[in-house]
Amino acid sequence: MTHTQGKETVVTKETQATGPKGWIGYRPEIKVMDCTIRDGGLMNNHRFDHEFVKAVYQADIEAGVDYMEIGYKASKKLVSRNEFGAWKFCDEDDMRRIVGDKKSSVKISVMADAERTDYHTDILPKDKTVVDMVRVATYIHQIPAALDMIKDAHDKGHETTINLMAVSTVPDLELDNALEALCNSDVGTLYIVDSFGTLYGEQVQALMHKFLKFARPAKKTIGIHTHNNMQLAFANTIEAIILGANMLDASIAGLGRGAGNCPMELLLSFLHNPKFNLRPVLRCIQHHVEPMREKLRWGFGIPYMVTGHLNQHPRTAMKFMEETDGRDILKFYDAAIEEE
Amino acid sequence: MTHTQGKETVVTKETQATGPKGWIGYRPEIKVMDCTIRDGGLMNNHRFDHEFVKAVYQADIEAGVDYMEIGYKASKKLVSRNEFGAWKFCDEDDMRRIVGDKKSSVKISVMADAERTDYHTDILPKDKTVVDMVRVATYIHQIPAALDMIKDAHDKGHETTINLMAVSTVPDLELDNALEALCNSDVGTLYIVDSFGTLYGEQVQALMHKFLKFARPAKKTIGIHTHNNMQLAFANTIEAIILGANMLDASIAGLGRGAGNCPMELLLSFLHNPKFNLRPVLRCIQHHVEPMREKLRWGFGIPYMVTGHLNQHPRTAMKFMEETDGRDILKFYDAAIEEE
Repeated sequence: MTHTQGKETVVTKETQATGPKGWIGYRPEIKVMDCTIRDGGLMNNHRFDHEFVKAVYQADIEAGVDYMEIGYKASKKLVSRNEFGAWKFCDEDDMRRIVGDKKSSVKISVMADAERTDYHTDILPKDKTVVDMVRVATYIHQIPAALDMIKDAHDKGHETTINLMAVSTVPDLELDNALEALCNSDVGTLYIVDSFGTLYGEQVQALMHKFLKFARPAKKTIGIHTHNNMQLAFANTIEAIILGANMLDASIAGLGRGAGNCPMELLLSFLHNPKFNLRPVLRCIQHHVEPMREKLRWGFGIPYMVTGHLNQHPRTAMKFMEETDGRDILKFYDAAIEEE
Repeated sequence: MTHTQGKETVVTKETQATGPKGWIGYRPEIKVMDCTIRDGGLMNNHRFDHEFVKAVYQADIEAGVDYMEIGYKASKKLVSRNEFGAWKFCDEDDMRRIVGDKKSSVKISVMADAERTDYHTDILPKDKTVVDMVRVATYIHQIPAALDMIKDAHDKGHETTINLMAVSTVPDLELDNALEALCNSDVGTLYIVDSFGTLYGEQVQALMHKFLKFARPAKKTIGIHTHNNMQLAFANTIEAIILGANMLDASIAGLGRGAGNCPMELLLSFLHNPKFNLRPVLRCIQHHVEPMREKLRWGFGIPYMVTGHLNQHPRTAMKFMEETDGRDILKFYDAAIEEE
């Protein structure tokens, strides 16, 4: 692999960039996935109103974003509709109220949690739904369940990804086993998911090399989903791009769980493919996303830095931010270190 | 140079890490410079009160920080004392009110702007001042003046650095010339200064390689000073560390001009040298720095992202943030693109 001084223009045997080369070029295979509604929904129990979801969808269309993840397909047997908003379930009617019947250039994705989705009934065949892609979110011990969900979604005609969550906690041997099994499945994209926002650039590089070892011969795409606990979400996304990741998750203004995700506006500024446009994203930030800042309170903060640094789930930090004014960071830090 | 999977533990011929190797090790040569008062002073005309400066100094002592930059040595012929606070001038008496007569483990640095400092009179000899280090800030066209200032400070017994500002705007040939001249001077450290917060990781790498080419044979240290316009201040600092930068600028809670600097709390979490302690920095953030957030309004924001992306000085973004509520980012963006 020749890595030219050129940001996303890594030239590999698989990905031969067309057009301008080097720093000013781009890799046309790169796709951008907007997770604003799905990951942001973890901050408000998925209660975004129609106008907001529509605004994000419209921004994605105008910005040239490739996919929009509109929410989860949670099991109604396990999760009450009273406790969560529409985007925890993504009923077909709700999705159609956003995208209409005539599809746009933006593909629609839903996330299906392993062991928490009634996928046999709730994931509809391609000709009966506006969904284009099913992303199966799984912890390492749920891989067998995830593989069955992948098969189901693939057989129904959907693009598929596997999002191996909290990869920072997975022992090396298990990860090798999982990647081997996944590369023998029909899944299209293998995601590196830094759920805890704990990875430094060199760790992303090491994971990319491991994922590439399995994914390249199997001709699978690699994706990256980052969290901003250590202000590295954007930088780590770039690291993955340089080594060949072609499916990139981002959220508008970084709206996502806890410290949030790689900000869409930074990612689109960075990417050189002229199909991407920054301005619609900025408009959406100004009119729709920033007005929710005070209520949802996502984004970098010391408690998230602490859990990220400790390779812990952000739930304690989220609880702290919800239940306090967030100022007593020493108290949070002392408790976190104590529990270690 | 062997870059082991090991964050700051790059093993070079010059820097042979002692103790544990690889990811868990550290490079003892690495020094941390706290710029909170100096760079943060650009947000309030250097009007920090005594209690605040003292608190930062105390935090640095307890945190194991190596240097604290306490402000500028501006010429009183050029700059009025009425318009600026004490830390624009760093009079000896003011500094002594902070550090006392008995020096601590933290060395004191002052920044002297080329062509804006009466250095012959205002930089005192080492035995008459609490200053340990003089950092000469210079644009590329001021290098001859800067060299004279370096000589003056060095002859007076001080450690010296040259901070070549806005390096992202310097033509390659001029930079080569400057580095050659600087390596023939007495300066101790050559700084890569990303004044506009415009550099991506690969650009930092390229600059590091260039700086190393000159600095290594001359046995000069390389330093890095970043701004967070694109949420890359910390990531870019790590990039420089990996390639061998041993003098690292950071600010508590990132307090610095515009989008701010590499946050000290992130940097100290990352560094493995046990002499560094995070907790005193968190205490200082909680009790002293965060309470100023609303007034000083530093930190990442879209206007800073825009100027960073355009490789522009942040002054238009700072003006926009000062004069408006900062919400109409589209207006700022449209004007910035128009002017390009």
